[in-house]
Amino acid sequence: MPDSAAALPVYLDCDTGIGDAMAIAYLLASEHAALLGIGTVSGNTSAAGAARNTLDLLALAGRDDIPVAVGEHDFLTRAFHGGATRVHGDNGIGGVVLPESPRHPVAESAPEMLVRLAHENAGQLRVIAIGPLTNLAIALRLDPTIADLVADVTIMGGAAMVPGNVTPVAEANVHNDPDAAAAVLEAAWPVTLVPLDTTMQSLLDTDDRDRLLASTRPVAHAIGEMLDTYFDFYVQVFGRRVSVLHDPLAAAVALGDLELDSAPIVHVEIDTTNGPGRGQTVSDLRGRFRGHPPTERARTRLVLSVAEPFAPKLMAALLTA
Amino acid sequence: MPDSAAALPVYLDCDTGIGDAMAIAYLLASEHAALLGIGTVSGNTSAAGAARNTLDLLALAGRDDIPVAVGEHDFLTRAFHGGATRVHGDNGIGGVVLPESPRHPVAESAPEMLVRLAHENAGQLRVIAIGPLTNLAIALRLDPTIADLVADVTIMGGAAMVPGNVTPVAEANVHNDPDAAAAVLEAAWPVTLVPLDTTMQSLLDTDDRDRLLASTRPVAHAIGEMLDTYFDFYVQVFGRRVSVLHDPLAAAVALGDLELDSAPIVHVEIDTTNGPGRGQTVSDLRGRFRGHPPTERARTRLVLSVAEPFAPKLMAALLTA
Repeated sequence: MPDSAAALPVYLDCDTGIGDAMAIAYLLASEHAALLGIGTVSGNTSAAGAARNTLDLLALAGRDDIPVAVGEHDFLTRAFHGGATRVHGDNGIGGVVLPESPRHPVAESAPEMLVRLAHENAGQLRVIAIGPLTNLAIALRLDPTIADLVADVTIMGGAAMVPGNVTPVAEANVHNDPDAAAAVLEAAWPVTLVPLDTTMQSLLDTDDRDRLLASTRPVAHAIGEMLDTYFDFYVQVFGRRVSVLHDPLAAAVALGDLELDSAPIVHVEIDTTNGPGRGQTVSDLRGRFRGHPPTERARTRLVLSVAEPFAPKLMAALLTA
Repeated sequence: MPDSAAALPVYLDCDTGIGDAMAIAYLLASEHAALLGIGTVSGNTSAAGAARNTLDLLALAGRDDIPVAVGEHDFLTRAFHGGATRVHGDNGIGGVVLPESPRHPVAESAPEMLVRLAHENAGQLRVIAIGPLTNLAIALRLDPTIADLVADVTIMGGAAMVPGNVTPVAEANVHNDPDAAAAVLEAAWPVTLVPLDTTMQSLLDTDDRDRLLASTRPVAHAIGEMLDTYFDFYVQVFGRRVSVLHDPLAAAVALGDLELDSAPIVHVEIDTTNGPGRGQTVSDLRGRFRGHPPTERARTRLVLSVAEPFAPKLMAALLTA
């Protein structure tokens, strides 16, 4: 349980999701985060389904104090057509059936929650976004001043010098709603992007899963169960049963828990065309041989690599969540 | 002088250019290449200027037997607006004034030359393209059967998992005429793409330049002089006086002179939108953890790295050209 006096006020926007479940567990275990609210968006599963998964997971963790708000079901310029069931299972969390929490989402929407928390924690709120960026874009429309109120925004999304995961060049969160991502990157708040370049470097394997399954702590055990579905999918990518750590890694970066190796401030533009580059985070890394000297347009911190292995840190958190 | 019985018949398409000059010198020095004709295209300089540079370089090498054809001045969907003078100097070859050859370009155009050579060397002709791909696209329009007649096409162009050199994601040759590149990649001939991923790995430095300038052989000496301009430009990229070896590296790959390290057959699509990805070689490398298993659409051999340093091989060639 975080010490709220010392902890950073956090709004989490997610599409829970197996990786999101790990990120939530990581944040719950952290002494550095005071999770003030969670908004959900469609992505891995529907916004409503993600809220249900989130509520159930929070109940399992004994954290019914954290409000959950449902956000946008559809993306800015296209409808949500179902989640990533082949990655995350039919219900978003690997088909694992959690005890149903009696709680319901709050009345405010996720964008409304973000706007409220930004005002209530002016200059302090850290936004962590690990799903499509639709809620953040809608929140900016509702109240553009939040771009000046929010301390920073950390996003799991994009791919810079590695392939994408839904197209050869696009990562799923950004590809689901490139127009929202463009609006979020163009806003005045400081943005840190944690792309596949970094998140594909950290893996959990079957030994880690066995340790989670052996835990008597309900969240750790549930995540161990969820990983089975994730492993099934990632066999196609890695040729072995492992799980990438996209979402919890972004959460850890947001909290300053990881020493960064390469994280230049560069210009990132989202491809919103309907061409083969749609959803790409077009990142200007041409200054890489000279330490990325500042350019006029460079505004986004792009985390290309971290300096320490994340899996042990994550496992320690999951086993105490 | 190549032994034409053993040597591979080659058509070179180029935009001479300092790197092109190195590639021509490399091909002239090779025992594996019988350079049957050279076509020029606008890019580093105009198609006409590139032909003049090529004729003068061939004269310097004592190889007035090789015909030079001028090709397309403009790109498929836009006009040529001047060359890369800040990279290659005003005349394309670093401002170096070569003795003017009395020869002129042949009457046929570069695309016509390619079509003729494809028929005359059916099943044998190797096409090496180190400029924008306009001439190859026009040749395919003139006679689509050349796609079945040409043995293979090796292209210096594109960027897969490294930044581009004219935009964050696009390399100059492809970016100059993405529509032509798309047509060339879609044709039935086998295509090998040598992108910046590989060509940025091999560099010449000031010691190499000094050795070229000390040579009594006129081509080597002239290239040493040209490198001064190239070095001036690349200081902005690398922070030191070096030259990349884009074009000669592609020529060496085409001749089979280099052991390849990673060269998967993958699907490559050209971004022909007007978005931020225009001119990108969108390369599907998502199978990289499993050795790039074949996919239905995979047709392009993408040379991501070579297994040996190229600079020493190139220097040896240049010093005998």
